[in-house]
Amino acid sequence: MIRASSEELQRFCSAVLESVRVRPDVAGHVTTGLLHASLRGVDSHGVRLLPHYVRAVQGGRINPSPAYRFTRSAPSTGLLDGDHTFGHAAGMEAAARAVELAKEAGSGHVAVANSSHFGAASLFALEIARHDMIGLSFTNTDALVKSHGGVRPFFGNNPLCLAAPCEGEEPFCLDMATSVVTFNKVRQWRQERAAAPAGVGADRNGVETTNPDDMSMLLPVGGHKGYGLSMAIEILCSLLTGMPYGPQIPKMFDAPLSERRRLGHFLIALRIDRFQDAATFKRRLADMMRQLRSEPAAEGVESVLAAGDPEKRAEALRRREGIPLPPGDAEALKQLGEAYGVACEWAESPTVR
Amino acid sequence: MIRASSEELQRFCSAVLESVRVRPDVAGHVTTGLLHASLRGVDSHGVRLLPHYVRAVQGGRINPSPAYRFTRSAPSTGLLDGDHTFGHAAGMEAAARAVELAKEAGSGHVAVANSSHFGAASLFALEIARHDMIGLSFTNTDALVKSHGGVRPFFGNNPLCLAAPCEGEEPFCLDMATSVVTFNKVRQWRQERAAAPAGVGADRNGVETTNPDDMSMLLPVGGHKGYGLSMAIEILCSLLTGMPYGPQIPKMFDAPLSERRRLGHFLIALRIDRFQDAATFKRRLADMMRQLRSEPAAEGVESVLAAGDPEKRAEALRRREGIPLPPGDAEALKQLGEAYGVACEWAESPTVR
Repeated sequence: MIRASSEELQRFCSAVLESVRVRPDVAGHVTTGLLHASLRGVDSHGVRLLPHYVRAVQGGRINPSPAYRFTRSAPSTGLLDGDHTFGHAAGMEAAARAVELAKEAGSGHVAVANSSHFGAASLFALEIARHDMIGLSFTNTDALVKSHGGVRPFFGNNPLCLAAPCEGEEPFCLDMATSVVTFNKVRQWRQERAAAPAGVGADRNGVETTNPDDMSMLLPVGGHKGYGLSMAIEILCSLLTGMPYGPQIPKMFDAPLSERRRLGHFLIALRIDRFQDAATFKRRLADMMRQLRSEPAAEGVESVLAAGDPEKRAEALRRREGIPLPPGDAEALKQLGEAYGVACEWAESPTVR
Repeated sequence: MIRASSEELQRFCSAVLESVRVRPDVAGHVTTGLLHASLRGVDSHGVRLLPHYVRAVQGGRINPSPAYRFTRSAPSTGLLDGDHTFGHAAGMEAAARAVELAKEAGSGHVAVANSSHFGAASLFALEIARHDMIGLSFTNTDALVKSHGGVRPFFGNNPLCLAAPCEGEEPFCLDMATSVVTFNKVRQWRQERAAAPAGVGADRNGVETTNPDDMSMLLPVGGHKGYGLSMAIEILCSLLTGMPYGPQIPKMFDAPLSERRRLGHFLIALRIDRFQDAATFKRRLADMMRQLRSEPAAEGVESVLAAGDPEKRAEALRRREGIPLPPGDAEALKQLGEAYGVACEWAESPTVR
C-alpha cells in the first residue's frame, strides 16, 4: 500500500482547496482536520474525503468564503452562524469562541448553526483541551441509526467527544459515535466481501442482517442507550441551534451537492482551574491513565487501554511511517490533483510497504 | 404484591428519616428522591434503599445535618462541599446553585465534593429542566464495570442524565448507566434462579458468564464505548471535584458503614433562551417526540418510544395504582417502621393485586 507523509498530504490538500477558491483560513482548518483524522487512524474522516469536499464546494453546498456571525448571548454562551462553510472551519472558530468565553466566565458554550460536515469531533475538543480546559464537542448528522423498537432510522449516529488535558502526554480523548460501527466499516466489509458480525446493521426493512450488501442502516450501541444518546445529542445540536434534525437533514453523499446541509454543532469549554488546581488535575489524570494501563489484561489482549490510546498509537506510527492510502483512495486523490494541476508527491516516489 | 400509595410511602420515609435525626430539609430531599425513583419504576434507587440509608446514618457514613460550603469560582462555575450528607440533598442543593449561576451567566456548572449515593441521576437534571434549562447530571460510583480488555473492574457504571423541557408533557429525560444492566438486575436473576443473557456480566476472573450467581462485575455497554464513557464521567466527577476515583471508592454495600464514600457529582444547567426562543425549543422538542413515536414499529413492539417514556408510563400507572413492594422489601420496611415506631399504613390495609 502507498504511504504518504503527513507533510506531503498537507501541502496537497491545501493546494487543492485553494485552487477551488477556499479562503486560506478555511482551507487551513479543513487541511488540519483531514490530517488530524488521517494521522489518528480515523480514515473515514481523513484525506479520502477531499474529492467529496471539492465537489461540495463546486456544487454550492459548501461556502468557501463564509461571513461568520457570532452573537454572545450571556457571559458563558454564544451562537455562531457558520454561513454554510466547512464544519471544520466553523467548528474551529466556535472552539476559539468557547475558550474565550470560558476564560472570563469559567465555561463557554457555543451553538453552531448553518454548518456542514465537521469531520472528527476530536479536532475541536482537543483544541479546547490545549487551553487547560475540558473540551466537549457534539454534532448531528443525517438519519442513519435504526430507532430502538423501530424499523427505520430517525437520528444519525451523532458523535460526542470529551477531551481532558493530561500531564506528560496528549489529552485523554473519548470520541464516539452512537452506532456500534460506522457506515464506513460496512463499506469496508462490502469491498472485502466479508460477512459483518451480528448486531451492527439492518436491511432496508429494519431487519438485522450480517450481509453488508443488504445493510441500509446501523444499529445503535447498546440498543436503547445509544439511541437515547443520539436523541440527547440531537437536542443540543438541532434544537439549541435552530437547525433541522434527523430525517430533515440532507444525506452527506446521496443528496444533491447544491443543497446546504444546515448541520448543527455544540461545543463546551470548561476551565479546569475554576474547579481544581490545573496541575493537580493533570497529574491525577496521568496517574489514572497509568493505573488503568497496568491493570491485568484479558487473555490475548496486550494491555488495557484508555479511550484515545489507539489513536495516539496510530498517530505515532503514521508520523514515522506515513499515512497508508488504499489503492482506491490514492487513485482518487491522484485524479483530483490532475484535475486541479496539483502534483501528488507521494505518487512520484511512493513508499510502498 | 402489596402496593403502597406514594403519599403513604412519603410520610413513612420522612418520619423514619426524622426519627434518626436527619435534618428536615435533608430528609425532604431524600424522600423526594426515593419517591421519584419508585414512582418512575427505577426500583433499584427507590424506597427499598431506605433501610440501608438509615444504617448508613447510624453508622456515621452519612452526615444527617451537613454544613454545606459553596464557592462560586467564576460567573458560571462553582464547587459545593456536601459535608458527607445524602447525595440527594447535596445534589438538590447543587442543582439550585447551577440554576442560579445559569440565570446570570447563561450556564451553570457545579462540582459536588464529599457526597454520598445520590439515587437516580434524573432527579437533578429534571429539577434543572423545570427552569426552562437543559439539565445534565453525572456521578461516579465504586469500581463495578469490567475494563475493556481487562479482567476486573476499575470504573463504576457512572451514569449520565440529560433532561430538556418539552411542550405539553414532562421533559425529555435520558438517564443511563454505562453498564449493559445494573447489578440490581443481576440480583433479580439470582432470586428468580434465572440465567442471564450473554454479554452482561463476568465472574471474578473477568470471564463472561450467564450464571448470575457467578457474576461479580458488569460489562460496559458497547464494550470500549461504555467503558470510555465511564472514564469521561469519572474525570468530571472525581478529578474536577478532587474526590477519589474507581478502585479508591468504598463500596456502597460491602464497605463499613462508618466509612465516608466521598462520591463526586457534576451538574450542568444551560439556559435555553440564551440559544433559542424557549417556547420554540419546547414546541420543536414536542414535534420531535410526536414524530418519533409515530415511526413504524418493529414486529411485536407496540410503538417506538423516546428515552424516558417508560419512566413516564410507570409514573402515571403508579400514581394511580400505587407503588408495588415485593415481599422482601415490604417486610424490610415494616421492620424498619417497627424499630423506629413509625406505622406502615399500607401494611394495615394493603392493596393486594
